[in-house]
Amino acid sequence: MDPILERIKSPKDVQKLNISELLQLTREIREFLIQTVAKTGGHLASNLGVVELTLALFKILDLPKDSIIWDVGHQTYVHKLLTGRREQLYTLRQFGGLSGFPKSSESVYDTYNTGHSSTSVSAALGMTRASELLGEDRRAVAVIGDGALTGGMAFEALNDAGTYGKNFIVILNDNEMSIAKNVGGLSRYLTNLRTRPGYFRLKSGLESGFGRIPYVGKPMIRILKAIKDSFRHLLSPSTVFEDLGFTYLGPIDGHDLPFLCHILERAKAINGPVLIHVKTKKGKGYKFAEDKPTAFHGIGAFEVETGKSGKSGESYSAVFGNCLTDLAKENEKICAVVAAMPDGTGLSGFAGAFPNRFFDVGIAEQHAVTFAAGLAKRGLKPVVALYSSFMQRAYDQVLHDVCLQNLSVVFCLDRAGLVGEDGETHQGIYDLAFLSHMPNMTVLSPANFTELSQMLSYATKEHQGPIAIRYPRGGARFDYTGMPFALGKPDILCRGENVCIFAAGPMLKTAMAVKELLEKENLTVTVVNLRTLSPLDSSEIFPFVSGHKLCVTIEDGILQGGIGEHLVSLCRQTGTPFLIKAHANGIVPQGKVEELYKLCGLDAETIVRHILQRFTKEN
Amino acid sequence: MDPILERIKSPKDVQKLNISELLQLTREIREFLIQTVAKTGGHLASNLGVVELTLALFKILDLPKDSIIWDVGHQTYVHKLLTGRREQLYTLRQFGGLSGFPKSSESVYDTYNTGHSSTSVSAALGMTRASELLGEDRRAVAVIGDGALTGGMAFEALNDAGTYGKNFIVILNDNEMSIAKNVGGLSRYLTNLRTRPGYFRLKSGLESGFGRIPYVGKPMIRILKAIKDSFRHLLSPSTVFEDLGFTYLGPIDGHDLPFLCHILERAKAINGPVLIHVKTKKGKGYKFAEDKPTAFHGIGAFEVETGKSGKSGESYSAVFGNCLTDLAKENEKICAVVAAMPDGTGLSGFAGAFPNRFFDVGIAEQHAVTFAAGLAKRGLKPVVALYSSFMQRAYDQVLHDVCLQNLSVVFCLDRAGLVGEDGETHQGIYDLAFLSHMPNMTVLSPANFTELSQMLSYATKEHQGPIAIRYPRGGARFDYTGMPFALGKPDILCRGENVCIFAAGPMLKTAMAVKELLEKENLTVTVVNLRTLSPLDSSEIFPFVSGHKLCVTIEDGILQGGIGEHLVSLCRQTGTPFLIKAHANGIVPQGKVEELYKLCGLDAETIVRHILQRFTKEN
Repeated sequence: MDPILERIKSPKDVQKLNISELLQLTREIREFLIQTVAKTGGHLASNLGVVELTLALFKILDLPKDSIIWDVGHQTYVHKLLTGRREQLYTLRQFGGLSGFPKSSESVYDTYNTGHSSTSVSAALGMTRASELLGEDRRAVAVIGDGALTGGMAFEALNDAGTYGKNFIVILNDNEMSIAKNVGGLSRYLTNLRTRPGYFRLKSGLESGFGRIPYVGKPMIRILKAIKDSFRHLLSPSTVFEDLGFTYLGPIDGHDLPFLCHILERAKAINGPVLIHVKTKKGKGYKFAEDKPTAFHGIGAFEVETGKSGKSGESYSAVFGNCLTDLAKENEKICAVVAAMPDGTGLSGFAGAFPNRFFDVGIAEQHAVTFAAGLAKRGLKPVVALYSSFMQRAYDQVLHDVCLQNLSVVFCLDRAGLVGEDGETHQGIYDLAFLSHMPNMTVLSPANFTELSQMLSYATKEHQGPIAIRYPRGGARFDYTGMPFALGKPDILCRGENVCIFAAGPMLKTAMAVKELLEKENLTVTVVNLRTLSPLDSSEIFPFVSGHKLCVTIEDGILQGGIGEHLVSLCRQTGTPFLIKAHANGIVPQGKVEELYKLCGLDAETIVRHILQRFTKEN
Repeated sequence: MDPILERIKSPKDVQKLNISELLQLTREIREFLIQTVAKTGGHLASNLGVVELTLALFKILDLPKDSIIWDVGHQTYVHKLLTGRREQLYTLRQFGGLSGFPKSSESVYDTYNTGHSSTSVSAALGMTRASELLGEDRRAVAVIGDGALTGGMAFEALNDAGTYGKNFIVILNDNEMSIAKNVGGLSRYLTNLRTRPGYFRLKSGLESGFGRIPYVGKPMIRILKAIKDSFRHLLSPSTVFEDLGFTYLGPIDGHDLPFLCHILERAKAINGPVLIHVKTKKGKGYKFAEDKPTAFHGIGAFEVETGKSGKSGESYSAVFGNCLTDLAKENEKICAVVAAMPDGTGLSGFAGAFPNRFFDVGIAEQHAVTFAAGLAKRGLKPVVALYSSFMQRAYDQVLHDVCLQNLSVVFCLDRAGLVGEDGETHQGIYDLAFLSHMPNMTVLSPANFTELSQMLSYATKEHQGPIAIRYPRGGARFDYTGMPFALGKPDILCRGENVCIFAAGPMLKTAMAVKELLEKENLTVTVVNLRTLSPLDSSEIFPFVSGHKLCVTIEDGILQGGIGEHLVSLCRQTGTPFLIKAHANGIVPQGKVEELYKLCGLDAETIVRHILQRFTKEN
């Protein structure tokens, strides 16, 4: 048959297709996705899992009047393919290219931006109630994974939606995975639900099949519903979702497209909130991804024939995991807490070595932090490993439970600073700004693997009270042999007379590049590795500030409340002028990290230019 | 009989009492609480509700080896009475006195500090697992209200605890209330549970009664359990808690002390997590509090005979509620979102006038914010009214859902700045620091009711994008007739030549007091009402800074990332010296607000002293 995919420009084109065309389309989409993501990298497994679900939603909903809110949003490649973005998909996750997440700026079909987990039900409920108040007939359907469902705010939203009197559809995309294997009571419960006979499935043989769905008369539906209601409560206990007020439809085979469409039509006719429990397989249709869905969750470019991707190189995550495992051998009080990221945080090895001291609490950052506070309260030394941008979810728990009680919890913040291809929602540029105003909190930033190792050792062996170590995605670093780490003590990389640069972490590499360039302009430069970002010790800092004509701070974090502002404020009586280089705008798009530093004026050339301008002016 | 309460110094004394003594003790406790809180003010209704529950826990647990984690913690007056703090209870909530919440610094029996909602299960699970790893036989029992249970992190914790293999007890203290009447699907569900026959209750007649509980043999318990298990699943569907992996015991009459003790003993013997569903009555034993539990949730001093308390005076909350109701009459797109605080936020009137446009989502700040983002996305104008310290719970939703998408959500932050008697956990001193680094966010601070009204009008009629208005608890203000509010424009209260003071909100009153005192020292003072705290417009600020010899910022917020640091950084090229007056320590204890300002060096006299020191030094 002729290819269909290239004819699809919008949901309207999907709606015109008959069942055999749709089935052909599922194969074409999978092939296209595999070929494209093999080149671009990205979230493959989750997208292969929602091909039929996306098509069913496009078939039954009236987009873009209606909206689909994709929770987290990395499963929207199919959605993008079918809404006029097929030809741009090769630009996925690149600077200026298509985002790997929904983006209102890209398409009218991307109605609500996501990126962090568990927001979809809240957003969809808000949109639904807004349309009701405005007298508009517009749906907003939330599609949430079983992993994202463990995030507390999803429960808050289900609780609120449970008493809503009008139609509201939530689709539970149950693939038995968060990023890693799911954990917790809910996951076990869903496994039980999955093994129940899907009573709709039983009935489906009696029903009319895909083509005739729209013609099933209303009385027939009513009779089926009555049968359902009576059998239901005899045969199986009510589900959690029903307890909260939802009508529960499921479990449904998420790769049975005709049946999915049928159920969606049914769901649209129900008054009140409906939860459709859809079983899908991550990686569906690509053997390597089916076998290793975690590896294919977020993957770099790979070889289609073998499923093999390039080595990812050295990383802070791996060094952190190895160091912590070594430290835990000597200190049995060390334990680790992660929120559904055993691999991403580098702690799979730790989990294998110390299964009793490893706690994966699921996508639940708030609980992770307060649970760790409880561990610390009884004398353990918990290390909470989170990505910087997801730590945002636990702001209040860090402040209220850990900092106010001055508990010895170690936070290891991976993906701090720009993360690159995941874009706006994932850039880890807020952590220092929000941690540095919390009482009792100490924040460290290692310039290289050796420093990470020393800091982790210090944090677990000596430090009392909350402490956070922030390090970037990947392995960007400045290797040098410095003074051993000591709390609050900066280290000096080189001494000059004109300009003093304060930096830490991988920004030291930029600082040293700046130094090289300035020396060509006959300016000598001191480069200070702060190491301890907060609190800053003025007695350590003052000598450097006073001795130079211009001070420069370089940080991979937001300007407001960042190192620069703190230093300027701390040193304001010295009279030395400061140039602050930081993210002046908190919205940093996707791209390679080096491209983004340029965009944000945090590359060596731009910094040098600004220094020279200022230096001329000040001196 | 002789009074018993005054003989109780520790849980050991409670354990010695027989049932009739315990029942007498409940009456004495209630009498003592009513008499004391009538003088001190505080959380009366919730404490009257947990008298029997507290006694049962003291009887059955081994405190302080075991721990009780009281969720939120305002229901711990009974706990305090029974742990050697009876004679101090008259100092409740006063500066230097007993806290209205658990405080480790007060007693070894207060093992974990709470204050914000929904943390108890996480903390207790962490403590339990820590003791298991350390080989200690120590329990940690969480007591959580049905209101707090709607907070998402409680669900995250239940999900995690559901697969825990050892004994772990959670007590659901179900009084059908958060602070206001509960909302949502879970609340409706619990109402259903409450009406089920408590099968334990049915059996209790067969059992041995209080005195003989310890002697019920193990085989008997095992037989009873078997009967239970078989009947249970025939008679009633499994509960949500069982679905998550918990053994569910209940519902239990929370005022039946012998039976509570019996059930607690039973629960201790169960392997794995147990949830005991206890029904209590807020205000139990004091007619006025039973009739009006919301009024007696947090109350000032009152008259015992009549239940009447003094008028609370004018407040920003009331002005906000009235203004918003008026604005909503003209603009049908305005709607309001609260998290279980319709009264506290001043929105009861709005709720009555516009029930369809008023959304109380329960204790669920995260959902509240993203739900509002959904409302805004479809064109409504949502106003989210939260207390400043509870807004912390929604940091990520404000950033990720509202600010990154630049949605027009209005945040009205009540209880901003020091709140006084509720102490550390409730001081609203972080909002500006964390909001001012969020992209697209605007933060305003009214000096008086007129400004609040103007700002609310501006925010709902003109402003595009996220905006927050922060105002204090009560009615502290500086009344004057200034320029009408305009975004980014400061207003000048008075002009002088020596010192320029920047302030906003009620701190203007302090600023004007400082001015008066400085004038006696022959220093003339400019006082600038910033009004717009973030972003700061340097072109508006520079002229003031440049023209003075010393600039002073006064703010009721945390130093790091606050107005002072932003202003110093913004104006660093002017060379004008700055004195920053803010909270240098984020841990501000309880007391009257005026006392606390003194403690924190934010009273006029201290500020003047510092200015004079600096002025002498700089000039």
